[in-house]
Amino acid sequence: MNTQNQNPAIILLNPQMGDNIGASARAMLNFGLTDLRLVAPRDGWPNIAATQNSAGALDIVKVTLFDTLAEASADLHYTLITSARRRDMIKPVFSPQNGAKELRTRTATGQKTAFVFGPERAGATNEDISHCNGIITIPTNPDFSSLNLGQSVLLIAHEWLKLEETMADKTLEMNDTFPVPHQQMDEFLTRLENELVGRNFFRTQEILPTMTLNIKNMFTRCDLSDQEVRTLHGIISALISPKRRS
Amino acid sequence: MNTQNQNPAIILLNPQMGDNIGASARAMLNFGLTDLRLVAPRDGWPNIAATQNSAGALDIVKVTLFDTLAEASADLHYTLITSARRRDMIKPVFSPQNGAKELRTRTATGQKTAFVFGPERAGATNEDISHCNGIITIPTNPDFSSLNLGQSVLLIAHEWLKLEETMADKTLEMNDTFPVPHQQMDEFLTRLENELVGRNFFRTQEILPTMTLNIKNMFTRCDLSDQEVRTLHGIISALISPKRRS
Repeated sequence: MNTQNQNPAIILLNPQMGDNIGASARAMLNFGLTDLRLVAPRDGWPNIAATQNSAGALDIVKVTLFDTLAEASADLHYTLITSARRRDMIKPVFSPQNGAKELRTRTATGQKTAFVFGPERAGATNEDISHCNGIITIPTNPDFSSLNLGQSVLLIAHEWLKLEETMADKTLEMNDTFPVPHQQMDEFLTRLENELVGRNFFRTQEILPTMTLNIKNMFTRCDLSDQEVRTLHGIISALISPKRRS
Repeated sequence: MNTQNQNPAIILLNPQMGDNIGASARAMLNFGLTDLRLVAPRDGWPNIAATQNSAGALDIVKVTLFDTLAEASADLHYTLITSARRRDMIKPVFSPQNGAKELRTRTATGQKTAFVFGPERAGATNEDISHCNGIITIPTNPDFSSLNLGQSVLLIAHEWLKLEETMADKTLEMNDTFPVPHQQMDEFLTRLENELVGRNFFRTQEILPTMTLNIKNMFTRCDLSDQEVRTLHGIISALISPKRRS
């Protein structure tokens, strides 16, 4: 078990504007976060606008590039994605403060975590959301809710740092379970989907994306441990093996 | 007694950049605040950069111009100013969340309140700070604490809106005192200072500013009611009147 106590990463999905990446890096460092993971930034990387708008933060914040959210979160145990409240998904929804508390509690037991942010305007896709373990919804004026990316990162990172003093000594109160890293969960889900496709579970092509998302959501919100996922693999293996003659 | 339940005003002291005023207005409206008071903005008002950076918020946020903080806060009962922690002043210091709670509690009894922000870079002066009833310090990474004005307003306004649901029904728990508006407090302090100057209380000119600030801080943190200030006036009047012959 990893017992190292790490701060959450910030994952930006397909960020469009270099300005916003720079502002996000600056906001991160303001509140002590230094692990920035960029998934397919529109204008590539490095980005001059990002550097200029980071007020020097990009000298310290470590940036890593990924092609997909799955790759960016492969080593992480628990991720929360910022999104408007979703009525079409069964998914835990946190306030920024409670989301930060959840990640504090988890990092205190050595879990690796991240706050995930969708791209400007379009926001996170259903696929992105179903990949993550829960949603953070920032409360805003319903008549004027236009937070930009850098502002969203700022608010969440602020909630994280705020809890630094108040959350001390929570480590001992944690129970012993350890959730599976995203990579192993993905492998499981991919295997499951393949097995299902191979058995014509999805009766039409149209139904496949929605049903796949529903399945992902179901498993990602369960907080499964490594051991439980190994058990699930075993169950699949058993189920797909030929029935023994009795 | 004013029993109307009003949101806090945002007071910006000598804001320099129109961009920051626009970002502040936008952040205010994101979290439902609409009373923006500008004290002597450097580039005058209206300001094109502010309008452009407000994402339309300045169509709804009401802007009022003032020459001084005293004028901008004349009708207000309680103000908190954002500043780094001050060891040279005896003044209540709030976290953003507790500062927002304090103002929630007060507005619930009909008090008029504001969050006050000093100018970019220079920050609030000692005089500004001593005028307000308390300080809000935003916790940041000590090695990288460069929040800009719009970001500070965003964080504070977010703390305000967050409490909307959780603070319901606090009205009945309030006690009956009502703090004096700033204007009456200022009149009292000015009178006191004049009386002291006239009596050579400040032995040197150099000592006057510091001692005046200390006196202001002492009174503004006391949460005095109208009645108590009237009593203080009475005390001054009594003290300065000639001693009666016995």
